[in-house]
Amino acid sequence: MTILLRDDAASVATLTMNAPERLNALSDDMLAALHGALDDIAQDTTIHAVVLRGTGKAFCAGHDLKQMQAGRKTGDGGTAYFKDLFARCAAMMQRIQSIPQPVIAQVHGIATAAGCQLVASCDLAIADDETRFGVNGVNIGLFCSTPMVALTRNIHRKAAFEMLTTGRFISAREAQELGLINRSVHSDALSRETAEMAHSIASKLASAVKTGKQAFYAQAQMTTAEAYAYAGDVMVQNMLVADTNEGINAFLEKRNPDWT
Amino acid sequence: MTILLRDDAASVATLTMNAPERLNALSDDMLAALHGALDDIAQDTTIHAVVLRGTGKAFCAGHDLKQMQAGRKTGDGGTAYFKDLFARCAAMMQRIQSIPQPVIAQVHGIATAAGCQLVASCDLAIADDETRFGVNGVNIGLFCSTPMVALTRNIHRKAAFEMLTTGRFISAREAQELGLINRSVHSDALSRETAEMAHSIASKLASAVKTGKQAFYAQAQMTTAEAYAYAGDVMVQNMLVADTNEGINAFLEKRNPDWT
Amino acid sequence: MTILLRDDAASVATLTMNAPERLNALSDDMLAALHGALDDIAQDTTIHAVVLRGTGKAFCAGHDLKQMQAGRKTGDGGTAYFKDLFARCAAMMQRIQSIPQPVIAQVHGIATAAGCQLVASCDLAIADDETRFGVNGVNIGLFCSTPMVALTRNIHRKAAFEMLTTGRFISAREAQELGLINRSVHSDALSRETAEMAHSIASKLASAVKTGKQAFYAQAQMTTAEAYAYAGDVMVQNMLVADTNEGINAFLEKRNPDWT
Repeated sequence: MTILLRDDAASVATLTMNAPERLNALSDDMLAALHGALDDIAQDTTIHAVVLRGTGKAFCAGHDLKQMQAGRKTGDGGTAYFKDLFARCAAMMQRIQSIPQPVIAQVHGIATAAGCQLVASCDLAIADDETRFGVNGVNIGLFCSTPMVALTRNIHRKAAFEMLTTGRFISAREAQELGLINRSVHSDALSRETAEMAHSIASKLASAVKTGKQAFYAQAQMTTAEAYAYAGDVMVQNMLVADTNEGINAFLEKRNPDWT
Repeated sequence: MTILLRDDAASVATLTMNAPERLNALSDDMLAALHGALDDIAQDTTIHAVVLRGTGKAFCAGHDLKQMQAGRKTGDGGTAYFKDLFARCAAMMQRIQSIPQPVIAQVHGIATAAGCQLVASCDLAIADDETRFGVNGVNIGLFCSTPMVALTRNIHRKAAFEMLTTGRFISAREAQELGLINRSVHSDALSRETAEMAHSIASKLASAVKTGKQAFYAQAQMTTAEAYAYAGDVMVQNMLVADTNEGINAFLEKRNPDWT
Repeated sequence: MTILLRDDAASVATLTMNAPERLNALSDDMLAALHGALDDIAQDTTIHAVVLRGTGKAFCAGHDLKQMQAGRKTGDGGTAYFKDLFARCAAMMQRIQSIPQPVIAQVHGIATAAGCQLVASCDLAIADDETRFGVNGVNIGLFCSTPMVALTRNIHRKAAFEMLTTGRFISAREAQELGLINRSVHSDALSRETAEMAHSIASKLASAVKTGKQAFYAQAQMTTAEAYAYAGDVMVQNMLVADTNEGINAFLEKRNPDWT
């Protein structure tokens, strides 16, 4: 069974995590498959948006605990393996944000621990309204410190602290109110709403979206003055793109743009 | 026709963008008029709060696209003009936050692209409940990178990313829930509610508000420890103001302060 | 009368501010008592969570204004006293976040100025649904600059600016929506709900919670890449704890962990 499926249609790549018997755990194989697929998509100019989803009962239940425990059976008690594992996981999470195309998480069932981190790391997320989200590693003595990095860059401080220290799950409605997801919809509408968002993005000028996504995360870590200096340069470059010139002219002339 | 009107009453300056036929676009003239008016107000100790609004159907629809396209007709294809334009626009937006007086956006109709940035840059905002907000430059191939700087310092990550990459408009109610505005009110109440907020602020000790506003944005870019060291010094200076001494005594003696 | 009561039960320390006639003002004595109690608890490995509450009509009404005014009667007009006071207050607020155990504010009545800062500084907060929150120093000419540091790290920019410059109070419901508190409950349920949250946290592996709390605030001030490098190391250390190994094994074997 292929652990990660890719299906391309209408400029949208759909990645489907396919280890339902393990609740799409982020095993070594799954991490490698995801990172590899993201690298491929980053180079693929025919793809303008990405949907990430999972088969089976869960979107993703986090790390593969059995595999992690097996990692202890090394000379150093697992130290080197764990260090490498968390580095690979963090690299994959950050790769989601560094590829040119927006990535939409299509979430159902549960998204827990590093699975919740995966939702937080995607640029956008739509969830089945019965989804439950948690960073519940604390329940087994493993505080979700790496998921915390992504979670706290999505939701406010006290809600994040509660989830992390009590292990409490939140509903899709709460996740929406907090900003972890863009919206929750009935399960019947999940695929359609995600596809609509993907197609809306895929219909834009890809070079503008690419530039904008990169700038989105870069400027977030700057002071306001630095961010404006940087974003101003980004705007100038964007203005100098021929398709942008055409896009603005088309708008002023009340016609559709003729993009290359 | 004067592009920007200023009306002072009861220590509140009301700035009215007055280019209704262009939806109050931030043309070169409008940017210069706004920046100049803000500079004047910064020096005017009789003014304790500012209201910014627009005439016609829209609060502000962003940059003046016709003027921008005309800017391409230079030796360098517009590069120098665009660079200067975005620098002037960013400087005006940041000037709103650097003047001593709080600035309240009184928003109606639409606030799009740099017009949405203008709302995000104001210290406070009250909107007609039928206002629509968008950073929809992506629809014409020009990603709203500079508006993004202000927007992402107001609302959470996934909502901002969606607005920027899909061009989706949000309602006044959504804008309130996300934190882009303080509240939305019925159009009949818009002027009154904005005036009430302005007068509430104008009734405070201006030196305290000035110090506080400056500290608000400064400390936001510091670590918590740095922010406390800085804010502690601000508090000491505030305590040493004679009117503050009087304000605290008046409170303890249950009477109104007799401020100079 | 003891200004601060401590009661330990079931690994939870409850600190009760006990100056009801002064609305639990943060006098020199109260600040010292709180800081001292936090230092003691930090060293006490039998305590896994802390509840902070107050007797009387208010949770805490902020600084002791009478004492502050008395501080002016020194050679320097109070400068050195005020500088020291705000430094001591900021140190206590930051000590809440640096002790290993999560601290839950159990809030009722009013939480104003530095009292609102106290709520914002606690890791978690549950409030009586009739509580009112404000940073209303501006009303007496003393802008709440130090409370602002904590407040703006809890709630969004425009709401914070409004509270600080207009002095407007917000309800418990609004405080919850904004993220200043985790939730508001009926006064009958306040003690019980707070205790439940404390006991939930106290039931976790204390070493994991300790590590996680420390990492929570540390990573919040780093770039995403730095935060991941740091949090990855935290995860490795967490994995190497014997009780964590046991916790994961217990989970995989569907039994309760046998923690030391």
